[in-house]
Amino acid sequence: MNEPRYFPPEKLREFTVRVFQSLGVPDDEARLAADVLAASDIRGIDSHGVARLHTYVDLLRAGRINPRPTITVVRESASTATVDGGNGLGLVVGPKANEIAMDKADKAGTGWVTVCNTNHYGIAGYYPLQALARDQIGWAMTNTTKGVAPLWGAERMLGTNPIAIAFPGNEEPAIVIDMATCAVAYGKIEIAHRAGKSIPTGWAIDKDGRDTTNPEDMMTDGALLPLGSDREHSGHKGYCLAVMVDVLCAVLSGANWGPFAPPFAIRQKPAERSVGKGIGHFFGAMRIDAFRDVAEFKAQIDDLVRTLRKTKPAPGTSGPLVPGDPEREAEQERSRTGIPVVPAVVEDLEDISRLTGIPLD
Amino acid sequence: MNEPRYFPPEKLREFTVRVFQSLGVPDDEARLAADVLAASDIRGIDSHGVARLHTYVDLLRAGRINPRPTITVVRESASTATVDGGNGLGLVVGPKANEIAMDKADKAGTGWVTVCNTNHYGIAGYYPLQALARDQIGWAMTNTTKGVAPLWGAERMLGTNPIAIAFPGNEEPAIVIDMATCAVAYGKIEIAHRAGKSIPTGWAIDKDGRDTTNPEDMMTDGALLPLGSDREHSGHKGYCLAVMVDVLCAVLSGANWGPFAPPFAIRQKPAERSVGKGIGHFFGAMRIDAFRDVAEFKAQIDDLVRTLRKTKPAPGTSGPLVPGDPEREAEQERSRTGIPVVPAVVEDLEDISRLTGIPLD
Repeated sequence: MNEPRYFPPEKLREFTVRVFQSLGVPDDEARLAADVLAASDIRGIDSHGVARLHTYVDLLRAGRINPRPTITVVRESASTATVDGGNGLGLVVGPKANEIAMDKADKAGTGWVTVCNTNHYGIAGYYPLQALARDQIGWAMTNTTKGVAPLWGAERMLGTNPIAIAFPGNEEPAIVIDMATCAVAYGKIEIAHRAGKSIPTGWAIDKDGRDTTNPEDMMTDGALLPLGSDREHSGHKGYCLAVMVDVLCAVLSGANWGPFAPPFAIRQKPAERSVGKGIGHFFGAMRIDAFRDVAEFKAQIDDLVRTLRKTKPAPGTSGPLVPGDPEREAEQERSRTGIPVVPAVVEDLEDISRLTGIPLD
Repeated sequence: MNEPRYFPPEKLREFTVRVFQSLGVPDDEARLAADVLAASDIRGIDSHGVARLHTYVDLLRAGRINPRPTITVVRESASTATVDGGNGLGLVVGPKANEIAMDKADKAGTGWVTVCNTNHYGIAGYYPLQALARDQIGWAMTNTTKGVAPLWGAERMLGTNPIAIAFPGNEEPAIVIDMATCAVAYGKIEIAHRAGKSIPTGWAIDKDGRDTTNPEDMMTDGALLPLGSDREHSGHKGYCLAVMVDVLCAVLSGANWGPFAPPFAIRQKPAERSVGKGIGHFFGAMRIDAFRDVAEFKAQIDDLVRTLRKTKPAPGTSGPLVPGDPEREAEQERSRTGIPVVPAVVEDLEDISRLTGIPLD
């Protein structure tokens, strides 16, 4: 009864475009936003694709996101810019700010853009992929609503604050890193909860800051743990990374940081106080030939990828993956099968269809 | 019998300067190198200060490090440079390359420098501290000799590859992050070994790739695990970070990457093949006012630091620290007590004194 329904990628994308258009998003920008969500679905990151469309729709319909934002560069230098996203969709502000970073890199060797007054921007991994096409190394980070406790803390203070970066190969595929800085994604807690299963220690704490194996304890005012989990396994390092992302995205841009990042879902409690505008992103682009001959660089990435694949495998495994492998595998399969959408999300899409009048089928 | 001997910081530093001078390092550069080691000792990172002096001495005496390197910018753009360190001391090449990054940032907003043909550069955390003094955000990374297995690998393929970054506050101290990308430092394995204690699971594997609690298993052809440790706790993320550092430091600069990074200690086996020159570093500097008014930025960092300190503490703790706290605490104490040097390291220093003719006392 929980079998997914398979949609051709193009069909889901077209539906997404028309939904955004119907809510006042200009045509080009609706396409851009749909591209970002489609990249997530095709790459197997189900949590960040059309599964989130309803939330974007809610926020647009409630007037909480501006469908036609004025996106402004408020400060800049040869290699930097600070962008005010005009409270637009992160799915639109993100790609535009990322493009500013890439354009700066074309001229100054690198480009670094911090963004305030923006909203959830989809998967971080989408952005560095754009840089690859220009023979640049791409970086993307974003802060997000609080969900993670600092090491030795008993409450949510930081977001899952992902870091993405990608390096192009020549004959071998690119190294594409896209990782939240917490031990595991919230989605894993939800899955265990729905299945009535316990979770491993090291994933989450309850509302009093105690380690828990009950997913419900985390969901009821508990918190996720940072990458590394406890002191013994260097949970302070995941905490440090989350702080780094928060500062680059939000403190540097003038967005809300830490526990004050506004919630994504419309039903969540607003933040206790405002310390800036919206959430924040950070993009970087580095022209490879500003450092090294591009062909040489790519040949060395090929060599590195092959070397990593030749690592002696740990017992019971087929050896290390190369960052980006799982997403590439999903993309191959889904290009063939279509995008599997679970019944709950199909219902969401049907609801969006009713709300907007855009047919799903 | 294992009581440390306390040295005034100035005395250790002067000894270090004279030792480097005696081995042919020019005066200014000997001071620079001694500064980096002294910063480690005063900040409580005993593994990276004078405890390593003997290895630098060994390598200089063996002609494996050039005491008077020609440090060359081999490629550059407005915001970037690629530096060939001339096989000099990393303790000299590092500060000079870092300065190039900061100078670039003064002009272009940011500066990014990748370095090949260099050697071990001390603590990564030293470098961002230099940027703070110029109202810049500083970054430093370095690759290192292999010691860490990729997730699902059964052998050493990557270094402990640290990441450091620092953000200045105004009334509050700076946020200073300096972290290896593996679960724990090799030093912790050694300490357990010397004490005849077992180590927690999640720190290391044995030569067959199996989890082990016996420190000797790791030391005998085993490997450290990446931050996150196992698949369930996202060991792939620590692995991704180590790869990121390796590419930015070594693939981008033309240094040796992954398992081919040359060993630091003179007794270790040389790498299987050469894929570049020496090891690699990566430095970044971002002028804060290229993004945001400096006073505003610092006021927000103060607010963030205070907010983090007010986090509800987890049971049995006094609440989260701010990144940099442990090192600041050590610095305060050691400024008062002097630098505690354990007997094994005192013996090392006495041996260096015999070898170089520089008096320790």
